[in-house]
Amino acid sequence: MTMMTATEQAFEDYLAAHAEARLESYKELIRIPSISALPEHAADCRRAAEWIAADLEQIGMEHVEVAETGGHPVVYADWLHAEGAPTVLVYCHYDVQPVDPLDLWTSPPFEPVVVGNRILGRGVADDKGQLHLHLRATEALLATRGTLPVNLRFVFEGEEESSSANLDRWLRANRQRLAAHFALISDTGFFEGNIPSITIALRGMMYAQVDVIGTEVDLHSGGYGGAVENPANALARIIAGLKDEDGRILVPGFYDDVVELTPDERRLMSELPFDEEAYLARLGLPELHGEIGYTTLERRGARPTLDVNGIWGGFQGEGSKTIIPAHAHAKISCRLVSDQDPDRVFAAFRDHVLAIAPAGVRVEVRLLGGGHPSLTPIDHPATQAAARALEATFGQAPVYIREGGSIPVCATFEQALDLPVVLLGFDPPDQRAHAPNEWMDLGNYETGIRTVARMWDEVAAIGVDGLRA
Amino acid sequence: MTMMTATEQAFEDYLAAHAEARLESYKELIRIPSISALPEHAADCRRAAEWIAADLEQIGMEHVEVAETGGHPVVYADWLHAEGAPTVLVYCHYDVQPVDPLDLWTSPPFEPVVVGNRILGRGVADDKGQLHLHLRATEALLATRGTLPVNLRFVFEGEEESSSANLDRWLRANRQRLAAHFALISDTGFFEGNIPSITIALRGMMYAQVDVIGTEVDLHSGGYGGAVENPANALARIIAGLKDEDGRILVPGFYDDVVELTPDERRLMSELPFDEEAYLARLGLPELHGEIGYTTLERRGARPTLDVNGIWGGFQGEGSKTIIPAHAHAKISCRLVSDQDPDRVFAAFRDHVLAIAPAGVRVEVRLLGGGHPSLTPIDHPATQAAARALEATFGQAPVYIREGGSIPVCATFEQALDLPVVLLGFDPPDQRAHAPNEWMDLGNYETGIRTVARMWDEVAAIGVDGLRA
Repeated sequence: MTMMTATEQAFEDYLAAHAEARLESYKELIRIPSISALPEHAADCRRAAEWIAADLEQIGMEHVEVAETGGHPVVYADWLHAEGAPTVLVYCHYDVQPVDPLDLWTSPPFEPVVVGNRILGRGVADDKGQLHLHLRATEALLATRGTLPVNLRFVFEGEEESSSANLDRWLRANRQRLAAHFALISDTGFFEGNIPSITIALRGMMYAQVDVIGTEVDLHSGGYGGAVENPANALARIIAGLKDEDGRILVPGFYDDVVELTPDERRLMSELPFDEEAYLARLGLPELHGEIGYTTLERRGARPTLDVNGIWGGFQGEGSKTIIPAHAHAKISCRLVSDQDPDRVFAAFRDHVLAIAPAGVRVEVRLLGGGHPSLTPIDHPATQAAARALEATFGQAPVYIREGGSIPVCATFEQALDLPVVLLGFDPPDQRAHAPNEWMDLGNYETGIRTVARMWDEVAAIGVDGLRA
Repeated sequence: MTMMTATEQAFEDYLAAHAEARLESYKELIRIPSISALPEHAADCRRAAEWIAADLEQIGMEHVEVAETGGHPVVYADWLHAEGAPTVLVYCHYDVQPVDPLDLWTSPPFEPVVVGNRILGRGVADDKGQLHLHLRATEALLATRGTLPVNLRFVFEGEEESSSANLDRWLRANRQRLAAHFALISDTGFFEGNIPSITIALRGMMYAQVDVIGTEVDLHSGGYGGAVENPANALARIIAGLKDEDGRILVPGFYDDVVELTPDERRLMSELPFDEEAYLARLGLPELHGEIGYTTLERRGARPTLDVNGIWGGFQGEGSKTIIPAHAHAKISCRLVSDQDPDRVFAAFRDHVLAIAPAGVRVEVRLLGGGHPSLTPIDHPATQAAARALEATFGQAPVYIREGGSIPVCATFEQALDLPVVLLGFDPPDQRAHAPNEWMDLGNYETGIRTVARMWDEVAAIGVDGLRA
C-alpha cells in the first residue's frame, strides 16, 4: 500500500469537505434543460453556458468566455501558468439529448435524484457529469496547490447532440489560441462490467431525412385505396431496400472506404471480457442481430450501421382512421468507420433511395448532419498517461475499446488542429444516454475527479519532450 | 317541359321559404364535433344524437329514441301511417372522422363556412350532410302534405367511422321492430364529373395494428447500432413484405375468396366516363399505381387493397436524435371485396406478419375492426326507383358504380335483417371525406332533398307487390 503524499492528502481532504456542495452543484447544472436540438431550448443552452462560465471564474480559470459560434455558444477558459509544462485542450459538451418519451422517466429528467450510488437525470452522464468532474478536479487542484501541473484550455461545446454544426468553424477560426500538445475528450465510457476503459476508435455519422410525398391531403383509403401509391407503404419499401436480412447495407459503394479489422485487432476484441448472454438479458431482446460474419463487439465498434431513428406518417391516435397518408417521413442515420466520409456516404445513400423509390410518389432526401470517424493510437504517451491514471485511481488497468458512438469534433481536433486525441471518459456502460432514465455511477464520477488530477500529474511527469516521443 | 303539380309546387315553395333556416340548421349539426374514434368526443357524439332526436320530434317523426348500444347511441324514429304502402329503413351516420392534420384546414373543421357553391367542414358530406337532407325532405313533405307516401324508419348511427362496433348487435336485437321492404343507405357519392350515381358494390374492411417491440427504452444508436435489430427497420421490412412491386398482396390465401370480375362487368366499368388524366392531375401525383392487370376503376372498386393508414416510432421532432427506437407501430387496413371475410383475412394477415417478422424483435398483431363487403342488384325495383328519382331531379340518368369505401352495416342489413339495400348518396366526387377541407356541393345537397322526396313517391307507385317482383 502506497502512502499518500501531503499534497494528495490535502486534495482528498478538500474533496471530502466539499462533497455536499459538489453534488448540489452537479444537480444545479443538470437542472438547466440545455437540449440543443430543440429551438425552444436555445435560451436554456445559453443559460447552461453562463452557469459554467461563472463556475470557471469562481474556481480560478482565466480568459473565461461565452464565445459566439452562430449557434449555441462555446464556453472557453484557460490556465497557462505551468511554465514549460505541456498544454492540454480539454473538450466536453454541455448540451443534452431531447427527453421524449417523457412518460418512461421514473423521475422528471431535469430534476436530478440520487438513488443509491446512481444519479438520474438527462445529461448526468452524457456529458454534463463528465464536464462537471473536470470543473471539480480543477477546483480542488487550484484550491489545494494554488497551481496546476499542466496548462489547460477548456472548450465546452453546446451543439454536440445536434451534429456540432458550428464548432468546426469556430475551432478553425480560433486555431491559434487553441495551441496544445494534445486534446483530451471526456465523453466516452467504461466497458461492460464497469471496467475502466480508453476508447481508441469512434464511429462517424451521416444523418439524413427521407420525405415521401403523395397527395396534398390525406386520401380516403376506400375511395382511393388500390389506385394510388401509399407514401407510408412506399417509405417502408425504401427502408427495407437499404439493408438485407443479413444486416448488410445495400447502398452501392457504402463499404468502399471501410478499413477492415486486421486479424490482430479481431483477436484483441475477442479477448475483451464481454458477456454476450448478460448483455442480451439486460437488453431483454429475443436475440441479438447484426451484420453477418462479425461479432457483437465488432458490429458495434468497428462496422458501419444504418438505423431508422424515427418514422412517422398518417394516423397515430387511438382507434382507426381510414386514410392513405399524404406523406410519410423517416430520420435515418449511418454510423461510419474509418475511412468513410459522411458527405460521400450521404451522396451514395441519396442516390440509392431515389433509385429504389416507387414511381407513384415524390421522394426527397436531406442531409441533417455528419461527422468523421476517428482512430487514436494506443501507444501515444498521453494515452499511456491516461492508462496509468485510471489504474492508479480505479485500481485496475484499463481495456482499450472501440466505441460505437460518434464525437465528430474528434476528427476535427485531429485534422484541423493537428492534435492527438485521448478519449478518457467515465460513463458506466448501459447508462441510458439518449434514453429515459439516463444515469451516472457516482463512484465513477467521484473517482473520475481523482483520475483527471492524476492524469495531469502523469502528463507533467512526461513533459513536453516526452509527449513528442 | 312538365308542369309541376300543386303538391310539387307547395313542396318547392316550402323549401324556398326555409332555405336560410335549412342552411343554419345544417351548420348547427356540423358544429358538433362528433368524432367517434376519439374517446374525448363521446359526449359530443351523444350531443349530436340528441340534436337529431330533437329535430326529428320537431318535424313530426314518431317513436323518436336515442337508443343505447353500449357505444355511441343510435337515433331511431319512424312514421308508419302510409297504410298499405312500402316501408323503407333509412340509414345514415352522424359520427365523423378525426380532423388531423388540423393545420391543413383552411377554416376550422367544426365551424362550417360556405364558399361559392360549397360548404366546408368535417362531416358536411360524410355523412351529416346526407343525414340532414333526409331530415329536411321529410320535414318538407310532412309540412306540405301532412303525410308521407311511404312508411319510414330512420336508423342514424354514431359509430360508422370507428368500425360500427356496436351497431350489428343492436340491429339484431331490434330485428322485429325494424321490419321493412328494403333499406336505403345515403353514405355514397356521385361519379367523377359529379355524375349522378347508384353504388352497387362496397368494399369490406380489415383494420389491424402491428406493434414491433424491441428494448424497454430507446437505445443510443452509437452504443448499440449494428448489434441489435432496429424495431423501425424491422417494421419497414414487415410492411415491405406485405405487397410486391406489382401491387399484389403477398399474404398467403388473401385472394382465395375474391370474386373475379366477369368480362361483362369489366366492359361496363370500362364504359364509365372516367377521365384518368384529369383524375391524376387532380391528385397531383407523378403517376397512378395499383395492382397489375387491372384498370384504375377496377383497382379501387372491385379489387382488395392493403394500405398503411399510420406509422410511427422513435424521434419525430426537428433536427436529429440518434436513437434506436424502443418500438415502432403501424395501422394497416385492407379493403375487401366479395366474398372475402374480415376475420379470415385478419388471421391470414396476422400469420404472415408473424412469419416474416425479424427474429430480433417481438411483434404483436391486433384486429381493430372489420366489415363485410357487399354487392347490390341493379335490377331490384327499389334500385330502379332510385334511378328514376335521380334522373327526374338531376336531369341525367345515373351510372352504376363500385365504391371503394366500406359501409359495414350494408352487409348486416342484407344478412341479419334480410333486407335488400339501395345505396343512394349525394357526395360530390373528391369531397375530401376523411381529409382536411371536406366539402359538400350545395347543389347536390339541395337537389338531393328533391331526389329523396321523389324516391318515396316512386316507391309508393311501385307498391309492396311491385317491390317483391
